[in-house]
Amino acid sequence: MHDLAIGVDLGGTNLRIAAVDEEGNQLENLRTAALVDRGPDQILKEVSSAVHGMAARFRATHRLRGAGLGVPGILDREGGAIESAGNLPGWSHYPLRQQMERWLNVPVVLENDANCAALGEKWLGAGQSVEDLCMITLGTGVGGGFVVNGRPWHGVTGMAGEIGHMTVVPDGSPCACGSRGCLEQYASASAIRRMALTAVAQGESAALAAVAHSGPRFSARAVFECAQRGDAASLHIFARAGKALGIALANLINALNLPLYVIGGAVANAWEMFQSAMLEELSSRSIVFRAGEPLQGQHRGTIITPTLLGGNAGVLGAARLPMLLERSTNDCPVAGRS
Amino acid sequence: MHDLAIGVDLGGTNLRIAAVDEEGNQLENLRTAALVDRGPDQILKEVSSAVHGMAARFRATHRLRGAGLGVPGILDREGGAIESAGNLPGWSHYPLRQQMERWLNVPVVLENDANCAALGEKWLGAGQSVEDLCMITLGTGVGGGFVVNGRPWHGVTGMAGEIGHMTVVPDGSPCACGSRGCLEQYASASAIRRMALTAVAQGESAALAAVAHSGPRFSARAVFECAQRGDAASLHIFARAGKALGIALANLINALNLPLYVIGGAVANAWEMFQSAMLEELSSRSIVFRAGEPLQGQHRGTIITPTLLGGNAGVLGAARLPMLLERSTNDCPVAGRS
Repeated sequence: MHDLAIGVDLGGTNLRIAAVDEEGNQLENLRTAALVDRGPDQILKEVSSAVHGMAARFRATHRLRGAGLGVPGILDREGGAIESAGNLPGWSHYPLRQQMERWLNVPVVLENDANCAALGEKWLGAGQSVEDLCMITLGTGVGGGFVVNGRPWHGVTGMAGEIGHMTVVPDGSPCACGSRGCLEQYASASAIRRMALTAVAQGESAALAAVAHSGPRFSARAVFECAQRGDAASLHIFARAGKALGIALANLINALNLPLYVIGGAVANAWEMFQSAMLEELSSRSIVFRAGEPLQGQHRGTIITPTLLGGNAGVLGAARLPMLLERSTNDCPVAGRS
Repeated sequence: MHDLAIGVDLGGTNLRIAAVDEEGNQLENLRTAALVDRGPDQILKEVSSAVHGMAARFRATHRLRGAGLGVPGILDREGGAIESAGNLPGWSHYPLRQQMERWLNVPVVLENDANCAALGEKWLGAGQSVEDLCMITLGTGVGGGFVVNGRPWHGVTGMAGEIGHMTVVPDGSPCACGSRGCLEQYASASAIRRMALTAVAQGESAALAAVAHSGPRFSARAVFECAQRGDAASLHIFARAGKALGIALANLINALNLPLYVIGGAVANAWEMFQSAMLEELSSRSIVFRAGEPLQGQHRGTIITPTLLGGNAGVLGAARLPMLLERSTNDCPVAGRS
């Protein structure tokens, strides 16, 4: 009999559910639209039903150990609820963990989505050979998560990982967080779209203007495609994103000297467009990074890499969560949560 | 029979040695000029002799468990040597740990000075009630150290804690590290002196000009004294230092959400001069800090405090180091070092 855990990655747009065994083999993987405005009660019922179905299909060979639920936002870990989440309006303070445990009758662990992605990369992705890593997700916003000694790092009030709000341009673009010049204002998909619209407004790119005027769904992806076709303004926008990331990475590397930084989120797909600006800025700003650059072919320092698991990092990390619960001596499934 | 450990804090200027028992009681404390240009051989012999003397004086009641040696600079931890240290010219690659262990015949632990100070504050200072903290030392340069889960955090190549080289002004003053606008360029004693000399050159302060021209030993302390007398340019310099510290702290707090940040080093004595600019900047830039501000009198977030141990933080942390060595089952004193 093998152990099985089920990960749930609930975003504002997509819902992923994966059944994974302790070796990390994915037995089943479901991806669907999240449709979160139907409210937590309805969604959690459907999720629990899907989890039940998966567990039942592998019942002959696998015992369901627990479930992990990754959500975007700031968590009330003690209460097993979301404290606040911009992409899940109406979900705050709903007892997510308690409800799922009632419906599933196994331990459920609630975690922030960026921490889930970090843990997924640690377990099955770029971080398999390290105990400590930092994950930066470049999506609509910029999220972050740390794994320290093999486990998600929460910080004293559970808010660690707000790397998107690191200051990279002190007098830069105002941010919804109340500060200015946050990383999120330069390296998120929204920021890339904003910088492109500014370039269009200033008449800097006919190519961008043509796409921007063609429809309401103008996105960072369109800017990426213009950059691929060699549009100078679009290339410059990705270079700005890379430079901002380079400053943020230099700060993190100088302070923490972790072995691995993984860049995920949709914008990471544009890796080729921002990589060189990012590495150039990073190298000029971090003595710790430079000291770890390959010397005589032997790399003894920092690795920066795009995600290896892509959009699956979060759901795989979520599945890992119940496996990290300590079992008490009498193997009570809910004991030992912290 | 009690255990006793001896801490040695060797700086470019001062040498401190303290004999401390396991409860943190200081049995003896010596402070003298370091005179490091006499070379590591001579200095280490004198230090070892002083350690022997202290251990001998308490021999009737205390067993010497080991010694900790704190030094400024980047360490070769495996080799027990200094890799590079600007303030200890000629000391690099000298086998410090090995030599001291030979002379003392007890385990010796080598550590970076900022990490020692962080550990000292954790053990006997501001951090007694937390397991994780960050220490920032504002001295000639700006150093940093983390304690994570009660132990110094080294990072993958032992270079963690280079908080002084966090970018706070991307196009700011050039730094010896190769970057621009590092925290060290605004919040160190050297930076305060440099900003004061600039203010004098630009005719911004008669008060500063009078002191600056009075002698070659013009220092950050003189700027502090001018600020105390209400000199606007001097006050502005400390506000710039505070603002830079606020940005750096906001970045650290947003990323790591540690419970405690301790500010030490000589410039920390000017706390009243930079505190309000620091907290204002920090509060405007860190959602994580704001979320932890006292709510209905109950503080559940981040604490920022000047050092409680002052210049003794380093030597006390150094004394703590051998106490953290794991004892092997047969209590071999040198085993278990990592």
